Amino acid sequence: MASFHCLTFLTDYGLEDGFVAACHGVSSRIAPNARIIDITHLVPPGDIRRGAAVLAQTVPYFPPAVHVAVVDPGVGTGRRAVAVAAGGSVFVGPDNGLLSWAVEASGGATGAVSLTNTALWRESVTPTFHGRDIFMPVAAHLAAGVPFERAGERLDVASLIALSRPASRVSGGTADGEVVTVDRFGNAQLSVTGPDAARAGLMPGTAVTLAWQGRELDAPFGATFGDVGPGELVCYTDSAGFVSIAVNGGDAARQLGLRPGTRVTLRVTNLFQRVRFPMGQPRDTIRD
Amino acid sequence: MASFHCLTFLTDYGLEDGFVAACHGVSSRIAPNARIIDITHLVPPGDIRRGAAVLAQTVPYFPPAVHVAVVDPGVGTGRRAVAVAAGGSVFVGPDNGLLSWAVEASGGATGAVSLTNTALWRESVTPTFHGRDIFMPVAAHLAAGVPFERAGERLDVASLIALSRPASRVSGGTADGEVVTVDRFGNAQLSVTGPDAARAGLMPGTAVTLAWQGRELDAPFGATFGDVGPGELVCYTDSAGFVSIAVNGGDAARQLGLRPGTRVTLRVTNLFQRVRFPMGQPRDTIRD
Amino acid sequence: MASFHCLTFLTDYGLEDGFVAACHGVSSRIAPNARIIDITHLVPPGDIRRGAAVLAQTVPYFPPAVHVAVVDPGVGTGRRAVAVAAGGSVFVGPDNGLLSWAVEASGGATGAVSLTNTALWRESVTPTFHGRDIFMPVAAHLAAGVPFERAGERLDVASLIALSRPASRVSGGTADGEVVTVDRFGNAQLSVTGPDAARAGLMPGTAVTLAWQGRELDAPFGATFGDVGPGELVCYTDSAGFVSIAVNGGDAARQLGLRPGTRVTLRVTNLFQRVRFPMGQPRDTIRD
Repeated sequence: MASFHCLTFLTDYGLEDGFVAACHGVSSRIAPNARIIDITHLVPPGDIRRGAAVLAQTVPYFPPAVHVAVVDPGVGTGRRAVAVAAGGSVFVGPDNGLLSWAVEASGGATGAVSLTNTALWRESVTPTFHGRDIFMPVAAHLAAGVPFERAGERLDVASLIALSRPASRVSGGTADGEVVTVDRFGNAQLSVTGPDAARAGLMPGTAVTLAWQGRELDAPFGATFGDVGPGELVCYTDSAGFVSIAVNGGDAARQLGLRPGTRVTLRVTNLFQRVRFPMGQPRDTIRD
Repeated sequence: MASFHCLTFLTDYGLEDGFVAACHGVSSRIAPNARIIDITHLVPPGDIRRGAAVLAQTVPYFPPAVHVAVVDPGVGTGRRAVAVAAGGSVFVGPDNGLLSWAVEASGGATGAVSLTNTALWRESVTPTFHGRDIFMPVAAHLAAGVPFERAGERLDVASLIALSRPASRVSGGTADGEVVTVDRFGNAQLSVTGPDAARAGLMPGTAVTLAWQGRELDAPFGATFGDVGPGELVCYTDSAGFVSIAVNGGDAARQLGLRPGTRVTLRVTNLFQRVRFPMGQPRDTIRD
Repeated sequence: MASFHCLTFLTDYGLEDGFVAACHGVSSRIAPNARIIDITHLVPPGDIRRGAAVLAQTVPYFPPAVHVAVVDPGVGTGRRAVAVAAGGSVFVGPDNGLLSWAVEASGGATGAVSLTNTALWRESVTPTFHGRDIFMPVAAHLAAGVPFERAGERLDVASLIALSRPASRVSGGTADGEVVTVDRFGNAQLSVTGPDAARAGLMPGTAVTLAWQGRELDAPFGATFGDVGPGELVCYTDSAGFVSIAVNGGDAARQLGLRPGTRVTLRVTNLFQRVRFPMGQPRDTIRD
């Protein structure tokens, strides 16, 4: 396998400690020419599903790369450390499901190894920081051109742990799903894809009734935030291809009480009542 | 136009999602040798004036570069996407005023185009993520050497939307301004420049009365934080050249209730009463 | 001295302003080929001891580099600006103790200069932003190959300001220390090293009584978080070699009320009562 120009890095290490930088340092010793692009290090501590969702929705925009991901509450226990080949890239991390959605989004695993070749590890390994001591040094060696198979014993790809897909069901006029992620803007991404929703008649130009936790609200199904007025609710297909709920200029997740895992039903509706949330101060004013 | 070594990136995307990284990935496919330097991605969502201020105060320290900035509440609506040439650099972003102060700080626009050449966009464009689908791919092509004019139809630079300048007025012994930005340390930067203030007699070595929202406090006009004791108020000309208000070791904005937009008057004073805010625990103690 | 490929950067500048990026820009003008790796910019404002601890625990994982660190409440006052050679690397920053633990961790200072050569500074220097105007430009010149001695007047290394080491004392069956840092996960690192603790009989497989601020709790001394059940307390030697206190899947510092500086005593115990903290929602659920 050729060397990789690009190495991505996703963790729950946060940005206030030196953990991320120590990993960068380890990589720059082994593969000084590999460029590390940080995906995020603000995955909530131990939140494997959040890490898996961000990874899966980000890697499609990269060239073939070594993707290192570490959200690893079982660090130092019996869980396996793995490298998985998929779609011309290699994914490196704990075998706890974190990599599974990204591997699937990359076309599925074409090979996998258990990271048992200690020659590629840091010379000394601690039980609580495998990102620095195992995952990143192995990834840097792969980026520098060490063949994938050299990282350890070959695994049956069917033995890799996979996260369950979030629930999603579509039938005539109705889509049932759950909130998968909430982004910085408070936009709540559902597990229902835009094309699936369209099959049920939920598409731009229609109106929908959102039902969740005993509440109901109507919203137009638009294409972007500005399709509704400031403070108004809108459904749209987001930039990752999933139906999402936003408040234009607001924070839908906070204002509606939506969190990852919240079950939401969307129904096509004809009559609908425009919902507008109170806005704070205008966020920007072009006063020219 | 030659290629650019350096590409900067400022958004309100936050750091917890994969949005920033997806843009880095898109760039690394098109311009693998361009180096992206992130300015900040923590502009409050949709706060165009804050983004404009940070951009304008940061770009002067860069070599000629492609500067991509995206604070874009109107994404997917009729607002134009533009590239603006100024001072040897190119600014890429939405035409909503975000770029205007930085363009002015770079000597003014010498050319502008509307980003209508879809050949430079990502092959598929979503209505809510033009940073990834339009702005960054166009910027990466420019960084890789595509001539500016090739990005789209030429625009009259006078048609570019400009943010109003914050209010600022100086007369004998008095300067009226407003808070433009508050930094991490709680230092409140006013719209009054150091040289303008000096013309009114407000300069290091004098003392001033600050008046805002019906309150008044006196402070020395110093050069740096350590010119006053811990917890004491000080006026100074900040590193961007604007008169600012700080509490040494404290947080002036919080302690005085200053926010972007707050109107502040500074008057030369002779008698003055030293103001000291209660400090919490000492922040650092060299105990040698 | 040869040029350095790698330049690290640690500050208390935060990530919401353009301060960090302005320094990157200054460096890219002087040393376009130097790669800057950010260690952290989230040191609490002015917290020199926190900055010193993160720096000292991160630099060992880097190749020889120029390490720039700026936590500098005395900026613009009489405190010296210095460069210190240690272990093949150069440390650049204010002479307020910030660099001292990292220099010691790198084998001690082999030379030091006061940054008095203004030819290496930015052409114009402000009193409040020496990171941009002095430290980074000097560091970039050093990274680009300017000899260390050229940065200014030679200093006696004994004159460099050093932070006191945190208290730590070990005797038969007991270790007294203090909390040095708390990481993102709420793990509290003590000033007692793993080998020192082992000499007192505190090591994996034993059990300890923690005593702090009049409270006592028992915990097993394990190797990693997963050695105890979810929500349970565990002592372990962390990835930097120091005895630390964690709650598996929880936040020990918050749950026990530990902060930097809190004095903690560990005693070997035989009988012990397993402590389990209530967990919130499970953080990750592999539902396959």
